[in-house]
Amino acid sequence: MNDLTQLTGQVTELRYALDTFYFLVMGALVMWMAAGFTMLESGLVRAKNTAEILTKNVGLYSIACIMYMLVGYSIMYPGDFDGGVFGSLTTIGSGLLTSTDYSATEVIASNGETYYSGLSDFFFQVVFVATAMSIVSGAVAERMKLWSFFLFTVVLTGFIYPVQGFWKWGGGWLQQLGFLDFAGSGVVHLCGGAAALAGVLLLGARKGKYGPGGQIKAIPGCNLPLATLGTLILWFGWFGFNGGSQLKISNIGDANAVSLIFVNTNLAAAGGLVFALILARLWFGKADLTMALNGALAGLVAITAEPLAPTPLTATLIGGIGGLLVVLSIVGMDKLRIDDPVGAISVHGVVGMWGLLAVVISNESASLGVQVIGLLSIFFWVFISSLLVWLAIKRAIGIRVDQEHEYEGVDISECGLEAYPEFASAE
Amino acid sequence: MNDLTQLTGQVTELRYALDTFYFLVMGALVMWMAAGFTMLESGLVRAKNTAEILTKNVGLYSIACIMYMLVGYSIMYPGDFDGGVFGSLTTIGSGLLTSTDYSATEVIASNGETYYSGLSDFFFQVVFVATAMSIVSGAVAERMKLWSFFLFTVVLTGFIYPVQGFWKWGGGWLQQLGFLDFAGSGVVHLCGGAAALAGVLLLGARKGKYGPGGQIKAIPGCNLPLATLGTLILWFGWFGFNGGSQLKISNIGDANAVSLIFVNTNLAAAGGLVFALILARLWFGKADLTMALNGALAGLVAITAEPLAPTPLTATLIGGIGGLLVVLSIVGMDKLRIDDPVGAISVHGVVGMWGLLAVVISNESASLGVQVIGLLSIFFWVFISSLLVWLAIKRAIGIRVDQEHEYEGVDISECGLEAYPEFASAE
Amino acid sequence: MNDLTQLTGQVTELRYALDTFYFLVMGALVMWMAAGFTMLESGLVRAKNTAEILTKNVGLYSIACIMYMLVGYSIMYPGDFDGGVFGSLTTIGSGLLTSTDYSATEVIASNGETYYSGLSDFFFQVVFVATAMSIVSGAVAERMKLWSFFLFTVVLTGFIYPVQGFWKWGGGWLQQLGFLDFAGSGVVHLCGGAAALAGVLLLGARKGKYGPGGQIKAIPGCNLPLATLGTLILWFGWFGFNGGSQLKISNIGDANAVSLIFVNTNLAAAGGLVFALILARLWFGKADLTMALNGALAGLVAITAEPLAPTPLTATLIGGIGGLLVVLSIVGMDKLRIDDPVGAISVHGVVGMWGLLAVVISNESASLGVQVIGLLSIFFWVFISSLLVWLAIKRAIGIRVDQEHEYEGVDISECGLEAYPEFASAE
Repeated sequence: MNDLTQLTGQVTELRYALDTFYFLVMGALVMWMAAGFTMLESGLVRAKNTAEILTKNVGLYSIACIMYMLVGYSIMYPGDFDGGVFGSLTTIGSGLLTSTDYSATEVIASNGETYYSGLSDFFFQVVFVATAMSIVSGAVAERMKLWSFFLFTVVLTGFIYPVQGFWKWGGGWLQQLGFLDFAGSGVVHLCGGAAALAGVLLLGARKGKYGPGGQIKAIPGCNLPLATLGTLILWFGWFGFNGGSQLKISNIGDANAVSLIFVNTNLAAAGGLVFALILARLWFGKADLTMALNGALAGLVAITAEPLAPTPLTATLIGGIGGLLVVLSIVGMDKLRIDDPVGAISVHGVVGMWGLLAVVISNESASLGVQVIGLLSIFFWVFISSLLVWLAIKRAIGIRVDQEHEYEGVDISECGLEAYPEFASAE
Repeated sequence: MNDLTQLTGQVTELRYALDTFYFLVMGALVMWMAAGFTMLESGLVRAKNTAEILTKNVGLYSIACIMYMLVGYSIMYPGDFDGGVFGSLTTIGSGLLTSTDYSATEVIASNGETYYSGLSDFFFQVVFVATAMSIVSGAVAERMKLWSFFLFTVVLTGFIYPVQGFWKWGGGWLQQLGFLDFAGSGVVHLCGGAAALAGVLLLGARKGKYGPGGQIKAIPGCNLPLATLGTLILWFGWFGFNGGSQLKISNIGDANAVSLIFVNTNLAAAGGLVFALILARLWFGKADLTMALNGALAGLVAITAEPLAPTPLTATLIGGIGGLLVVLSIVGMDKLRIDDPVGAISVHGVVGMWGLLAVVISNESASLGVQVIGLLSIFFWVFISSLLVWLAIKRAIGIRVDQEHEYEGVDISECGLEAYPEFASAE
Repeated sequence: MNDLTQLTGQVTELRYALDTFYFLVMGALVMWMAAGFTMLESGLVRAKNTAEILTKNVGLYSIACIMYMLVGYSIMYPGDFDGGVFGSLTTIGSGLLTSTDYSATEVIASNGETYYSGLSDFFFQVVFVATAMSIVSGAVAERMKLWSFFLFTVVLTGFIYPVQGFWKWGGGWLQQLGFLDFAGSGVVHLCGGAAALAGVLLLGARKGKYGPGGQIKAIPGCNLPLATLGTLILWFGWFGFNGGSQLKISNIGDANAVSLIFVNTNLAAAGGLVFALILARLWFGKADLTMALNGALAGLVAITAEPLAPTPLTATLIGGIGGLLVVLSIVGMDKLRIDDPVGAISVHGVVGMWGLLAVVISNESASLGVQVIGLLSIFFWVFISSLLVWLAIKRAIGIRVDQEHEYEGVDISECGLEAYPEFASAE
């Protein structure tokens, strides 16, 4: 009997170890998505603004990690500290500064409630915050001041994101209402899209983008292999994003769930790409690569709110509709003169909304009304608070670069170097 | 005793979970190979054809995933449905449309026969199909019509590949004959190479590639860092390709096997690269980077049919011979005026054959005769059926772009955009 | 009772399997760092030297793998063979040529001492050797002969690295003295930095880098998106580098440890990037992207000697100081006219030293004196032996390319091709 007790403890430890390892691998894949956004955006801007968008991307990732450690995580998961959002502010970063983790005794005594390392959870969550913020950098590209952007990053990753994250994943009111958002079509993608929209509305369009009389000038990205690479990195990393959101893999039910999530995530992206490519071909007469890439990303965003309930065929169609929507939205944004160089507001904001609503298609326990409430709450909280922060930054130090710097490219004025100093310009 | 039964069940669940997780991670690495092919090919074509090859790569991956879900998987693994290839066509996609997976009761009752999620198996298999198809896009680059290529993709990934896949991995006649092909030197790589050869023979060479009197014009790739990146992505992803083909890792024997596969896969690539680089240096007088890259890939293809039986030193040599062969083959193809812009037929077709034959070096249970039968069966099935499909497509809508579009680059005519719109051409 | 024994054996097998799988995944991430160095270096050199640096990177990785299999591993881990460094030379590669691994009986009999596949250990170790060598290629870029570099690679990876690796990780005198270097700030990074410094001192600066009267000409990298991608690949791969160095994950204590290592590794990089970016902004007036990238890498190098003892906040600061140091060091190297095109000596050598010393901040069992002894031993062993080898190669075949080849770029003279043949030069 003693041997049996000992063996039971060993099995509990093994389960904990497997779940933790799974969580770390999935988290590392999400971290890798930072490279995806970086390549995607650097491929879709012009050469003269490339070094700056690279700097923004690596900078925002770093700031997001530090801010979430210092305050964000405590706000989003107040947990044992004191049970409240504002209360936990008094214990800033307390959980992480000491970095203790569960002991074997605690885990075994918890009867399987404590099934992975708390720090592995922090790691997984922190890379999600960075993802949300990455969405913003693309939309405001080519004209926003670097340090104003970083200032906004501090506020979004430390406060705005964690508050709505708490509403859902921290056990707050949206969770209690029955709002469903498995891996964050709303909490992550719509959040990023809403913050980006607020910034873009204040910032205005790039010089020359919209002419008099409804003219729209296409400003093509300078390096499409990098944009494609970025999309494929995001596709790859999304297995961690959605697959890790199951939170557990150490039994048959969870292992099957994670498998279905992988299959559905992959097929939703495939569906989004194919549908967007065909629509672009029919509408514009050409197989527009950038639309195809945004279609794949739209498929991924669309399935993120519920990658577990649909069958693979349904997942393909949910992603496919995302792909159609993103083409319509990108064209529509230009009609509205909302200038989003990489299509981030369409991909993450508009299709994020579609993802939240699509949950009702496959998940019987979802309520359309509650999904709409969640959608609106996240959108307005993030949009309004972001608008106020952008306004404050604008008043304090400005958010838009000088016109001459915009013309010559922000690489020189903000970073003091060029991304491709040796390659002659065709313009 | 009750506790012991319960614990035994938990251990069975853990094993199932570990094997499933391993399978998903390996599958994700194989999916990532899609980025490898995409970067490799976009680096080895000319700038004016880059956006189109990017579109082909992301498009074929998506189509492959959808077609394999709809029909391919049922053909290749008819399994429980009705035990036959044609019979299973009546249950198109049936297994996946419902997406049920094994229950704990089933798994425990199977006595370890059912050791991972069926959906994780689908995920692993589907990324293999995409790999086979990726081989084709490189060989027909710079001159094939985009939508003709996609049409062929539908047929290869939905029918041609799964039929020969069934012969070996689905338990068909090649399997019963004792044909050995661990991870697919034949089923995946030779299959892709044979389909590519059929396409290239019908398509003809790029304009200007071969002059009168045996002249051969070198058409260098436009972006070698991307080609190198693609090669390293493929090298990395190949750990999933070969390592996952062990199918199981949850006991000491399998864990040791996967470790040896990782070591051998890595060393075969290293051997292929070094041998190809030295041969290029001796023959051409220069350390030709593209030959070195193709050497590494050749090493990987060569070891894929049997990465488990050889010692690490033998694996290095099997890969090394692959590296020598690929240099000879690439030069030879040009003599035969078979125009393959990225060397895909040599890397995957010719060296795939070498891999199948090399099994007899290290695996005592292999029969040279059976390996030859398997090699010829796969080659002729794929080559002839592909030729017929290419011919049908040629008759219906044509397969080659107009000469003026080929001259100006297919990016504009097929995709309506340029891959590098801002960089001036040196030509 | 029989059932219990059997189940205990199964649990032991599962533990072994999980630890092996973890080790292989972490190793694959470290292998992927080869792509990181390749992209980083190809982004930071000039276009005309890009193909050659790509060739060096893929070549050195391959040579490192082969040499470490043949002799390096036996020197570093003499293990069961005969217990001595020189003795094991007589059994060159013996462990790997036969490639046997542990049997279930051995593992179960070892009482948990033997907890993962020996071949998975070799795989993990071999990718570390390649990392050390990758550091050198960047520092000697744009002017060193290709084959001289490869010759040095043979010696460093087969002998110089394994000898000092044995001192610490093989159980040698530094280990017995209590020297602490968790994942290799010293054994890997300082080793690479010292070998690079020896090469650079013999080689001299690039033509035109330093003018008369203390003039320093900035020679910007030609492709900053690739440099950024390389940095993010390294960041991602570093989770394997540090996370795998725990060597075990199958119980709660080790799972918690690996989680903390992931968190600390990530935050140290973030700290390094932010601190370096702010210092660059204050000092140079611009947010210098290359300094930010080197800051992130410096943060990673700094935390590598002890990623487990610090709290996350301390890890951020240790990385942050690394980021400040690297900016100072890069500027200082130029004052000393030590020409290091990518800053490798600063990032890996100087900050590697900081990492070794920083162990005493968080780990109470560390002794500053012993850390200094270890630092000096590694530095002088590698520096002096490398200098002798570089000297011997210089005498035999020369190490520096002809001046005219340096002027026209080493791509043509060494590799016979160009990295970007179609893109016009702006110069």
